[in-house]
Amino acid sequence: MSAEISKDQVREMLANLFENQMPFHQLIGLTIAQFGQDAIELKITMKPELVGNVLHGILHGGVTATMLDVAGGMIVFNQVLEDMDVVTLEAVKQKIQNLGTIDLRVDYLRPGRGTEFTATATVIRAGNKVAVARMELHNEKGDHIAFGTGTYMVG
Amino acid sequence: MSAEISKDQVREMLANLFENQMPFHQLIGLTIAQFGQDAIELKITMKPELVGNVLHGILHGGVTATMLDVAGGMIVFNQVLEDMDVVTLEAVKQKIQNLGTIDLRVDYLRPGRGTEFTATATVIRAGNKVAVARMELHNEKGDHIAFGTGTYMVG
Amino acid sequence: MSAEISKDQVREMLANLFENQMPFHQLIGLTIAQFGQDAIELKITMKPELVGNVLHGILHGGVTATMLDVAGGMIVFNQVLEDMDVVTLEAVKQKIQNLGTIDLRVDYLRPGRGTEFTATATVIRAGNKVAVARMELHNEKGDHIAFGTGTYMVG
Amino acid sequence: MSAEISKDQVREMLANLFENQMPFHQLIGLTIAQFGQDAIELKITMKPELVGNVLHGILHGGVTATMLDVAGGMIVFNQVLEDMDVVTLEAVKQKIQNLGTIDLRVDYLRPGRGTEFTATATVIRAGNKVAVARMELHNEKGDHIAFGTGTYMVG
Repeated sequence: MSAEISKDQVREMLANLFENQMPFHQLIGLTIAQFGQDAIELKITMKPELVGNVLHGILHGGVTATMLDVAGGMIVFNQVLEDMDVVTLEAVKQKIQNLGTIDLRVDYLRPGRGTEFTATATVIRAGNKVAVARMELHNEKGDHIAFGTGTYMVG
Repeated sequence: MSAEISKDQVREMLANLFENQMPFHQLIGLTIAQFGQDAIELKITMKPELVGNVLHGILHGGVTATMLDVAGGMIVFNQVLEDMDVVTLEAVKQKIQNLGTIDLRVDYLRPGRGTEFTATATVIRAGNKVAVARMELHNEKGDHIAFGTGTYMVG
Repeated sequence: MSAEISKDQVREMLANLFENQMPFHQLIGLTIAQFGQDAIELKITMKPELVGNVLHGILHGGVTATMLDVAGGMIVFNQVLEDMDVVTLEAVKQKIQNLGTIDLRVDYLRPGRGTEFTATATVIRAGNKVAVARMELHNEKGDHIAFGTGTYMVG
Repeated sequence: MSAEISKDQVREMLANLFENQMPFHQLIGLTIAQFGQDAIELKITMKPELVGNVLHGILHGGVTATMLDVAGGMIVFNQVLEDMDVVTLEAVKQKIQNLGTIDLRVDYLRPGRGTEFTATATVIRAGNKVAVARMELHNEKGDHIAFGTGTYMVG
């Protein structure tokens, strides 16, 4: 039986996992700027490889979708974590393995112009089997680039 | 005034543009296997950088979303092209600049296991302002990995 | 302990329940034309009360959404039923109570002109907790009025 | 050429049209509680005919979808109206005829328990061809029943 760990430790571990051990996140430069009890904040710095439209020099819609999906999944995991009574490494691993995106909607509001993009998320439906989150993407000026809605399997 | 070009020439140009001049497509290795009057087929070969889950070794959901979005956009562009009476480079450029994803839904059906993934798409609503496409992602065994639905601005 | 019943009997019961004991279905005139092992077919006959736009005399988008949601829910239930080993009234009731729409996307393709509308559905993701269905609405001429995608809680 | 009318007059006319001359709205008892420059509020009082589940006595998901779709359409129309320089009856009629739902997503958060339901909406993407709105449905206790996202044709 594995020993108990704190929820803050779990968040730190997960942030580290998502930032440093997920090859696709490293490929695009996704970083976890904040992952606390109430909030998730992912960041990405614009670079030539992320451009989707050479004429306009804007962020590829696939990067936007990726950031929103990951932000939603992490905030949903956080909800699962907050609902756990006993937190062990074993139990957390199990929860992470159960987590998966069922469906995702992205609403592209404005062209993705900017130098740094930030994704945030909140849980709108918490459940022990399925959870739903809403996500947002803004650029460094606060322009609202995209909205997302994701339904996730959690149990 | 620019000279007329054939629709097949336009598709070839666009396929080349999407495969070789879109930095994000090159980053993930997206290729245009087929782009004809009735069909679009995008392919991607699995590589470590595209993995979303190191435990399971499956395709990142963001890559899935990217492939579906691009497949939908290209088949919708093809519809716009087929509806053009006079095809000049100038007119085609204008059409490409007008094209943009308004919203995208991805339904993740199965974990993205496989060595090669193929995205296809069909137009379900053709219009001179807005078009809607449905997309599919399969692996090399024919397993159905994901469905997509995208609404695109076209005019 | 309740006695076993056949799956066909269950479908007949459910069709009867949905057609005759769901007040909203009676209000709009929703009928279950077919509910077999592989298919669901809901029908509605146009009547003045279902018009959403008096100028155009077309079906209200809310009726379209309703038909698609119900068709998806029934085909998903059918999947649950087919997966049951022992079918008792008690077990079926439990399954019906667990069933619920998590999210629904409707793509309105054409104005809802016509005298009779038919909704059909297929399961695209079967699971013991969550299932996803795709739905279609056609009029009596076979014009494709709308597409739907629904994610349902099933367990 | 028709005479100019005020934007408040237009909103009043539209509220009246939607409440009293849309047969489906009267069938379900949809009323326009508020329609001002910044806000739309639709209400519906629970009645037996709107029940979707006789066991639980909850609002049918199709009614929820209807309310969200209408709320989104009205707030989007309001945006179109606010963007008009010269407001004549003729021009307004044209705008209403152009308005149509392209796609709608409904997220069902909680069972629709309650005696009165209120739908509200805000525009998240304003455009001269396409607009996107987000909608919410609450019951009389303030419980959040559903979220919606709708993409509308406006021009």
